[in-house]
Amino acid sequence: MQFSIGSELAYTVGERTTFILNIAPLRLGRQRILAERLTVPEGQTSEEKVAHDTTNRYLRLVAEPGDIVIRYEARVALEPDYHDPDTIPEVPVAELPLEVMGYLNPSRYCLSDELARFAQRQFGPLTPGFSRVTEICNWIHSEVDYVAGASDTMTTAADTFALRAGVCRDYAHLGITFCRALGIPARFVSAYAWQLEPQDFHAVFEAWLGDRWYLFDATRMAALDGLVRIGCGRDAADTAFCNIFGVARSTAMQVWCNAIDADAAEPWTTEAVSIASN
Amino acid sequence: MQFSIGSELAYTVGERTTFILNIAPLRLGRQRILAERLTVPEGQTSEEKVAHDTTNRYLRLVAEPGDIVIRYEARVALEPDYHDPDTIPEVPVAELPLEVMGYLNPSRYCLSDELARFAQRQFGPLTPGFSRVTEICNWIHSEVDYVAGASDTMTTAADTFALRAGVCRDYAHLGITFCRALGIPARFVSAYAWQLEPQDFHAVFEAWLGDRWYLFDATRMAALDGLVRIGCGRDAADTAFCNIFGVARSTAMQVWCNAIDADAAEPWTTEAVSIASN
Amino acid sequence: MQFSIGSELAYTVGERTTFILNIAPLRLGRQRILAERLTVPEGQTSEEKVAHDTTNRYLRLVAEPGDIVIRYEARVALEPDYHDPDTIPEVPVAELPLEVMGYLNPSRYCLSDELARFAQRQFGPLTPGFSRVTEICNWIHSEVDYVAGASDTMTTAADTFALRAGVCRDYAHLGITFCRALGIPARFVSAYAWQLEPQDFHAVFEAWLGDRWYLFDATRMAALDGLVRIGCGRDAADTAFCNIFGVARSTAMQVWCNAIDADAAEPWTTEAVSIASN
Amino acid sequence: MQFSIGSELAYTVGERTTFILNIAPLRLGRQRILAERLTVPEGQTSEEKVAHDTTNRYLRLVAEPGDIVIRYEARVALEPDYHDPDTIPEVPVAELPLEVMGYLNPSRYCLSDELARFAQRQFGPLTPGFSRVTEICNWIHSEVDYVAGASDTMTTAADTFALRAGVCRDYAHLGITFCRALGIPARFVSAYAWQLEPQDFHAVFEAWLGDRWYLFDATRMAALDGLVRIGCGRDAADTAFCNIFGVARSTAMQVWCNAIDADAAEPWTTEAVSIASN
Repeated sequence: MQFSIGSELAYTVGERTTFILNIAPLRLGRQRILAERLTVPEGQTSEEKVAHDTTNRYLRLVAEPGDIVIRYEARVALEPDYHDPDTIPEVPVAELPLEVMGYLNPSRYCLSDELARFAQRQFGPLTPGFSRVTEICNWIHSEVDYVAGASDTMTTAADTFALRAGVCRDYAHLGITFCRALGIPARFVSAYAWQLEPQDFHAVFEAWLGDRWYLFDATRMAALDGLVRIGCGRDAADTAFCNIFGVARSTAMQVWCNAIDADAAEPWTTEAVSIASN
Repeated sequence: MQFSIGSELAYTVGERTTFILNIAPLRLGRQRILAERLTVPEGQTSEEKVAHDTTNRYLRLVAEPGDIVIRYEARVALEPDYHDPDTIPEVPVAELPLEVMGYLNPSRYCLSDELARFAQRQFGPLTPGFSRVTEICNWIHSEVDYVAGASDTMTTAADTFALRAGVCRDYAHLGITFCRALGIPARFVSAYAWQLEPQDFHAVFEAWLGDRWYLFDATRMAALDGLVRIGCGRDAADTAFCNIFGVARSTAMQVWCNAIDADAAEPWTTEAVSIASN
Repeated sequence: MQFSIGSELAYTVGERTTFILNIAPLRLGRQRILAERLTVPEGQTSEEKVAHDTTNRYLRLVAEPGDIVIRYEARVALEPDYHDPDTIPEVPVAELPLEVMGYLNPSRYCLSDELARFAQRQFGPLTPGFSRVTEICNWIHSEVDYVAGASDTMTTAADTFALRAGVCRDYAHLGITFCRALGIPARFVSAYAWQLEPQDFHAVFEAWLGDRWYLFDATRMAALDGLVRIGCGRDAADTAFCNIFGVARSTAMQVWCNAIDADAAEPWTTEAVSIASN
Repeated sequence: MQFSIGSELAYTVGERTTFILNIAPLRLGRQRILAERLTVPEGQTSEEKVAHDTTNRYLRLVAEPGDIVIRYEARVALEPDYHDPDTIPEVPVAELPLEVMGYLNPSRYCLSDELARFAQRQFGPLTPGFSRVTEICNWIHSEVDYVAGASDTMTTAADTFALRAGVCRDYAHLGITFCRALGIPARFVSAYAWQLEPQDFHAVFEAWLGDRWYLFDATRMAALDGLVRIGCGRDAADTAFCNIFGVARSTAMQVWCNAIDADAAEPWTTEAVSIASN
């Protein structure tokens, strides 16, 4: 499936400011960038770099005072792996690849230590495997209310667990937290999301099951095979679409993700979806 | 029923120190002190005062450096009211006495604002009345593990809700929190508790239902009509058995509560128990 | 000095809702209500009650669905006590009246236990007395930025201490917290405040020094003898101008406090100001 | 300088349990392992792996029920770089290598977002460079009390900032937090530490200055050039000496670090010490 995706971000810069942007999708075998165009303010210094570990693509931009607009647009082809959920096992910690074990640790927003007992009580007795992570998502969807404005940039998964309200990022943090507490490596994924209403950068998560990362979205707000992955990391602290070092204020933002060759009326897949094997 | 209760507290005092102790039971119509004896270190200044609002009995003791022992013992007769739980209604906020409304506010350990949405989701649909508070206790008993050492003096009900482990004080805080979030006034009660194992100061809570305060104990560790009430307040911050202003270290502590005329083998009451009408 | 004060609150009520309002000033010897008028929606049930302990005046209003406006206006004469700050001592816990000792306990927003070590390190070495509380206010004024929107209804004094930003309510919570950590009883006071810009309900605090409560305002946004006291309590949890039990949304709010016989250009008092002896 | 280091860890294993140990020092150009011996329980499966990004050395051990002892000992030669602190600059975010930028993000224990305003207020006005990080360490050493038992595994830098008490791990978290809040990448380092009293695994931190990582220790409990580095990561969540997946209880632990060719009486270096360039 092909998507036309992009974002346009406008800022008023008060003094010389460095932006670290993560808005261009990852280049992966199953997520190919067919065409892309980045428009940055004329005369400003910018450079693109790819992270060694995550292969996240970062744009560093040093902007002088004034109004600036950053625009990225691309055509992306997704060819995810589809697998039968019933065949996908959890991997005992004794056999996990070392590379994914860092994703078992608690992180800024994913306090898997604090919520460990609950996770063990609630999800520990369930049959291990893909279906257990699905049950985690079902629990979150059922027990947490999606409420715009219910959380802020300091809200942890433990806060969301108590408050029982949040947005996509909080849903992802809670899913990651429960997985880690059960010994399942899990990480945060930012994405352009087809059919998401209203359009915005979306947040979902991946759990390491079998021999790869599988996508999960406890919000059920977008199809898993309509997600164009931008970045991944421990949690939202690693995966901001924009970090600002200096003085700048966001003045406008637009995000889009349109299917070029698909029909929105099609039912969403119920298969396990993976786009990344590492 | 009559009880022989008491406590003995030993401290090493490093410099002139003021102790505020709350170890003598309340004097109430249904809780009569038949005999009592307080032993404080010789030559130390001490005075007893009764609080206007709660009628808690406080002992203020100013101790000079050295080792001290404070001992309180009493014989207490309890004649609680027993009522049929099915007949006891919740009182709409529109009709609550003003005197009990302060017990609807969140307090140091009872973050009823933070857990409001959960309380509404979980207990909101239940039939109002005594049975709803029983359901709250059942939930706590089922979902929280009693683990000595799982909490400390800073642990709030929101922490306990996340950690799913605590001791009697945490159980009481959680019960109070859920009640307040539902519009039911609730307060913390410290007590000598018959049959409690191991013996210690116990913590339970009261909810205002119908026209009085009813006792609840989510730990199920002691019979409700075997509780000799010491103090009540917003939460444990108001109801410490000992507050120390100065430099002193606890060296030993003993607490006891023995029934004089009762048989421990009797089954516990399943009726609603009240010892305080205000 | 005389003030014309008042507030007008508008709500859209979604279902039968109980409001508990605390907008009428306290009646005190040194704060006399010369005239007042309360306007509540016609045909709605309302009653006024005075709390036994604080003498706060509460209005309970049960409103049916629809738009309602509550308006209170009064003329108030203030005759505060003025004392020489240098003559006002702290009172050792050994000599405090029992009635004020509850204001030593930590409360919902005033985590005096958590910030105890800092308070002792920072303010412990200072000379006890009125001037020490002044130093606490100076520290808050110097180290915390007044930033509208920096806090919300869950923000504790420990949060404000870390974030170093807040509004009047946070300033008061921090002042109360430091006082309690030093053994000085302190409580929260809501007020109409002359010269406050922009006009709103103001929050300050009182500390028990010598033989009475003295007013302090770490924000320095209003004169201490231009404060018309509305309510006092442990912290903001006890002193909301409006608690809503039901479904209602605030649609407009206006607050005013005008001096009838005073000149705004006069310099503010530097004396110790007290309006309440208990 | 050469050190004889090691640790011996004993556990009682209750059921089949996976241990992930990080007790062997890093292999670096300036930290050479001259000899080492790892003793694991006979007949148990174990494997050693080196992390791609940090080069931390992990030992994975799957242990059957029973008592086990894991012992590691080594002879290590340290040849740190010594530089003149006055010549070492901070690096603007605009010029930082991408590889170190992840160490600007807040993490589980290092809430650099929450403490950002304080860090900017307190350290922002200081001259950038190595000396600014030294000032951060001086502030921590002066304002925080070293108190064994003051913190636990959930204690964040924001908690330590409020409580003003902690141990080496808390000191490191606070230093990292302030650095990140100022735009200086910083990371957590676990180490064997010469002259540390009492002997234990030590925790310090590194800040990226100039073109490499420099060591800092706000506890001042060990010489910077007597630290044998074990692991590094975002914070303690990434750098535990032992993570346990299963049921096991620590029964004994011994840690040692002896200088083979040095004189403990020598004064500690005041130069900038670096052992890692990436």
